[in-house]
Amino acid sequence: MIKRNAQTLSLSGTDTASKRRELTDYFRTTWELYESLFEVINNDEAFFLKPEPLRHPLVFYFGHTATFFINKLTLAKWLPQRINPRFESMFAVGVDEMSWDDLDDTHYQWPRIDEVRQYRDQVKEALLHVIDTMPLTLPITPDSPAWVILMGIEHERIHLETSSVIIRQLPLEHISPHPQWPACPLTGIAPDNDLVRVEGGPLTQGRCPDRDSYGWDNEYGRQQVQLESFQVSRFLVSNQEFLEFVQSGGYQQHRHWCDEGQAWLKFTGARHPRFWQPRDDLWLQRNLTELVPLPMNWPVEVNQLEAKAFCNWKAARIKQPLRLPTEAEWQKLRQRVEDNNPDWASIPGNLLLDKWASSCPVDQFDHNGIFDVVGNVWQWTETAIDGFSGFEVHPLYDDFSTPTFDGKHTLMKGGSWISTGNEALADSRYAFRRHFYQHAGFRYVISHQPVADTQYTNTYETDALIAQYLEFHYGPSYFEVANFPKAVVNLITPHIRQQCRALDIGCSVGRASLELSRRFEQVDGIDFSARFIQQAYELLQRGEKRYTVTSEGDLVDYKQVTLSQLDFPEPPTNVRFVQGDACNLKPQFDGYDLVLASNLIDRLANPRLFLNTIPARINDDGLLVIVSPYTWLEEFTPREHWLGGLKVNGETYTTDQALQEILGSQFELVQQHQVPFVIRETARKFQHTLAQMSIWRKINN
Amino acid sequence: MIKRNAQTLSLSGTDTASKRRELTDYFRTTWELYESLFEVINNDEAFFLKPEPLRHPLVFYFGHTATFFINKLTLAKWLPQRINPRFESMFAVGVDEMSWDDLDDTHYQWPRIDEVRQYRDQVKEALLHVIDTMPLTLPITPDSPAWVILMGIEHERIHLETSSVIIRQLPLEHISPHPQWPACPLTGIAPDNDLVRVEGGPLTQGRCPDRDSYGWDNEYGRQQVQLESFQVSRFLVSNQEFLEFVQSGGYQQHRHWCDEGQAWLKFTGARHPRFWQPRDDLWLQRNLTELVPLPMNWPVEVNQLEAKAFCNWKAARIKQPLRLPTEAEWQKLRQRVEDNNPDWASIPGNLLLDKWASSCPVDQFDHNGIFDVVGNVWQWTETAIDGFSGFEVHPLYDDFSTPTFDGKHTLMKGGSWISTGNEALADSRYAFRRHFYQHAGFRYVISHQPVADTQYTNTYETDALIAQYLEFHYGPSYFEVANFPKAVVNLITPHIRQQCRALDIGCSVGRASLELSRRFEQVDGIDFSARFIQQAYELLQRGEKRYTVTSEGDLVDYKQVTLSQLDFPEPPTNVRFVQGDACNLKPQFDGYDLVLASNLIDRLANPRLFLNTIPARINDDGLLVIVSPYTWLEEFTPREHWLGGLKVNGETYTTDQALQEILGSQFELVQQHQVPFVIRETARKFQHTLAQMSIWRKINN
Repeated sequence: MIKRNAQTLSLSGTDTASKRRELTDYFRTTWELYESLFEVINNDEAFFLKPEPLRHPLVFYFGHTATFFINKLTLAKWLPQRINPRFESMFAVGVDEMSWDDLDDTHYQWPRIDEVRQYRDQVKEALLHVIDTMPLTLPITPDSPAWVILMGIEHERIHLETSSVIIRQLPLEHISPHPQWPACPLTGIAPDNDLVRVEGGPLTQGRCPDRDSYGWDNEYGRQQVQLESFQVSRFLVSNQEFLEFVQSGGYQQHRHWCDEGQAWLKFTGARHPRFWQPRDDLWLQRNLTELVPLPMNWPVEVNQLEAKAFCNWKAARIKQPLRLPTEAEWQKLRQRVEDNNPDWASIPGNLLLDKWASSCPVDQFDHNGIFDVVGNVWQWTETAIDGFSGFEVHPLYDDFSTPTFDGKHTLMKGGSWISTGNEALADSRYAFRRHFYQHAGFRYVISHQPVADTQYTNTYETDALIAQYLEFHYGPSYFEVANFPKAVVNLITPHIRQQCRALDIGCSVGRASLELSRRFEQVDGIDFSARFIQQAYELLQRGEKRYTVTSEGDLVDYKQVTLSQLDFPEPPTNVRFVQGDACNLKPQFDGYDLVLASNLIDRLANPRLFLNTIPARINDDGLLVIVSPYTWLEEFTPREHWLGGLKVNGETYTTDQALQEILGSQFELVQQHQVPFVIRETARKFQHTLAQMSIWRKINN
Repeated sequence: MIKRNAQTLSLSGTDTASKRRELTDYFRTTWELYESLFEVINNDEAFFLKPEPLRHPLVFYFGHTATFFINKLTLAKWLPQRINPRFESMFAVGVDEMSWDDLDDTHYQWPRIDEVRQYRDQVKEALLHVIDTMPLTLPITPDSPAWVILMGIEHERIHLETSSVIIRQLPLEHISPHPQWPACPLTGIAPDNDLVRVEGGPLTQGRCPDRDSYGWDNEYGRQQVQLESFQVSRFLVSNQEFLEFVQSGGYQQHRHWCDEGQAWLKFTGARHPRFWQPRDDLWLQRNLTELVPLPMNWPVEVNQLEAKAFCNWKAARIKQPLRLPTEAEWQKLRQRVEDNNPDWASIPGNLLLDKWASSCPVDQFDHNGIFDVVGNVWQWTETAIDGFSGFEVHPLYDDFSTPTFDGKHTLMKGGSWISTGNEALADSRYAFRRHFYQHAGFRYVISHQPVADTQYTNTYETDALIAQYLEFHYGPSYFEVANFPKAVVNLITPHIRQQCRALDIGCSVGRASLELSRRFEQVDGIDFSARFIQQAYELLQRGEKRYTVTSEGDLVDYKQVTLSQLDFPEPPTNVRFVQGDACNLKPQFDGYDLVLASNLIDRLANPRLFLNTIPARINDDGLLVIVSPYTWLEEFTPREHWLGGLKVNGETYTTDQALQEILGSQFELVQQHQVPFVIRETARKFQHTLAQMSIWRKINN
């Protein structure tokens, strides 16, 4: 086997010259390793086949990793000009694996393989020159050119693995065994699996920003979970253990399968794991370069849907809450493996291409009583991938993770025999659609802890209107206009006498409610839009909310707000967010010392009804605060219900006059302000508005 | 007859106490005169009849003039509370006479007449108190409370006249002769009319702001016209002169009538003037309180359509360009009447209720060879009313004139026997729909000067989008952001080398073109929207453009821009505005030293086509300036034609990058700026945008 040099790089050091050599070496080794993998293909025509209908032919992946370097360096302006614009367009975008029936039928005019090889050589030379000449200071940080080089290297190492999965599906006639890609020779009967008890406790997830190796965006941030104790299978589920499920008709018994699993079964007609092949009475298994009798003691390789079906089948048999582990549970196991790549003196598993170019028996690498915590094959979890609190995209690769934060991409952990570089780190997080194949199997746990306890999906809110309002309430200042909900609450504050109950009616995404919670014992935030309320609710529950805002055209900026940014070390417990109709509130929304109606009245169908009914819900001496730019529009308020902005009896009649007439008998007008606000539509286009704020105090009866 | 005290008031003086007495007197006399007019009605039921189907019954007008005072004083905050809110709603809005078939069928619950009398008494007392106690400094100016009092008085004097026209249509059984409202006893054969030559010359129209009497908004401003010499009829057209037209079948011969006149004829079936009545072989005429044999030597009373038909008939007969006078021509005649109300020691005509409560023979008041230049009956003109340059609304009565600047309201001049106060001023300007009846007749002129020469209608542009752009180009600064087209041209200026030809492509309402005309020999302003181009064109042609902008809801502010405000003492002659397609320009739009495309590219269906074709129209060393916020929207540009704001080959691709790629080979990027702009939507809501400006210089071939 070649010298794989597959551990990732330390970012720190004192000697830039030697770090430059390390980078050159890591780049060159990765590049050559990647090309070496494609040497198992014994004819150029095979590069143009599509063994996996959901992916491009291999020619794309052969060119893609080179193009990726060029595209990212071009974007970062570290490369003066492209090598081959046509190739760099063609090799730029992979086929997404978003759905199993989303076949790619674009007609591509792929180049010849020798042309791609020549292109790769050109790119290699160019990159070696960049590495030689780029500015380099230590440690390497995400804004340095060396980070872009590492991004390209780690990206190529991901494709080393995923390409190996595609090659594993090429018809065997196109493949020749290769001395550098030998399978494990060990096979035999699997050991009986049994359960190992693992103590629960608190667990911190997320990579520190100062960790001394390259990390992808999704690894950073921080999350605390409380794990209950659980039992876990000592071994990965072997082919032998899974065969029982197959032979008992597991692929025909739909009750074991989740809805998504049933749909996948129906679409594919699968009867067994993808790399198994029935031959007469035998089962065979396709490995990278050979077809062999099914190695019973190797881990089974399945997608997450199959793994879950097995767990459901087994749970039903043993009448125990048996399921896949969560990411956190796997991380608890991971504590049994000492140290981490790149600091390993010896590799503690079938990992980093250190052992074989295939799986191996499940009982080879003992990690303190549990086998294959890392390496051999990836282990599916129950956890849909999400960013940890504090997640931020890297500006050069803002869609590495964000499209997968959708609840449909599930994490695999631990790495496989061909997981190298960043993939083999304890912090690494790779997720795929649940129907997707990798060199991936699973182990199971028995736990009474609900999966939801340790996971959630903090989806990016991408609805343009909602995201605009999140940015409006929680984003930065534009044109030096202070945060509007905060300014409004600050202007109310001097007038507060009783501090018991406050109502933020038309609370939108909730900022004013949160600010009021610092001043009142109980705050109700009510909005007619359940979608707006949901944002506020999620922020309160999770301490964080993510959203995208348009920068230009379809391009977005990724944004987030956390409660701690808002100076809430702990989530306030005295705010509740409820969906409701300002004109038809439930009776319990009563007895308020403050009712704040901000940007509400000109969005109501019948604002007069609101103004007529809300006073009864306000305590004597309590405040009613109306803030509005009086933007009357027929799409919200029929013209006959506009409070003002009309000629009444032939005379100009403003909303301000109307408010005085409607409220004047029950309230004293304490103060008026003009309060500006800015709503961002794009990075260059904003709504800039001047609201009128009227503070009314209810007259004692 | 009562002491009419019908001349309006001087605004100036040194003694506020005596001015307060004058005001009290003018108010009280007007009030009592108005009530006195209604005394000719001999039963209360008659107040509820509708002799004129297009107007309210007389009860409305009886209450209305009182309510008007209250409403305006309330609006101006000079009155602490209303007298009778119900009445003040009911009596507020008159029926507009906008169309002859727009009948008012609202069901009104009118109060009894004694209730209205009581209400009028209450209002009178309240107003006398206001006049007694209001702050008063001299001279009285439009922002003082005395101005509001005068507004109410002059308003009542208008209704004195218009109510007398309605009473003249009440069936005679409801009317009793009244000693204070006596008709002229003089009747007889009319004198033969003949023509008097009037010398042309320059004429200045418009009232000086410091004129010493109350004026309505439409009287102010300034306009210069050049009058050709003309001949004018010595007398108003008499009943006798008009009878010939009637008897010759004038009402049946449609060729004499304009389109509007024909439609009116068809709708009404009119065969003779409205106040004429055929009785056996005789013609009778209805005056205010009596029906009398048609006084042949009194002026005929007709609407403008009938007057025009007569002129057309007569012009055809004598084969001369005979028509109604224009406003300017009448004003030329007015120079024959010395002095002006309120300075008249003796009243120079049948005017100001100084003589009779009716017309009188046309040969009674000689003004230097021409009779009845003022008084007797109003004289219809050819001129549709419009504001003079510098027109501004009064904030308390912004719809006194503005709705009539529509080309459909035509001026009457000179006043009638019952025109008093402001109505009897030389500067006064009253206009009605052309089918409308007043105590109005006409005289005619023979002139070769086209009517259009001395008039135009500078209609308020009320289309919200167009008005927004007029305000954007020509209005004030908001948020201290400098005028955008001007800022753009200023930023270009240092880079201009040749100053021959400039193209402002996507010029909208034309401000940048005008600014460029100061720096280039020839400027073409081209826009795809004919409606935008029209604004720019009109501003250039007329030196002024009016528009309304939304303040709140349906309420608008009245705005105008003049070339002189833009520091153009004379209209620039080196700008032309043309409709055209930026992507398909005619060949002659070529050889430019500057092409400015401001806020254009993200509104084109195919911006790349524009960028590919425009360079050929630019001279070597010439400039191409692109200014845009890159607000890509599918409603303007299909997504596949967006220049940037997309992921291209998986990478972020901005419009700025796209411009560099498209233009880089033919142009050098000289400079880039961020240029903010603000577009007002309401008084409180604005679009605030930051455009990117790129200045490119074409590389010499």
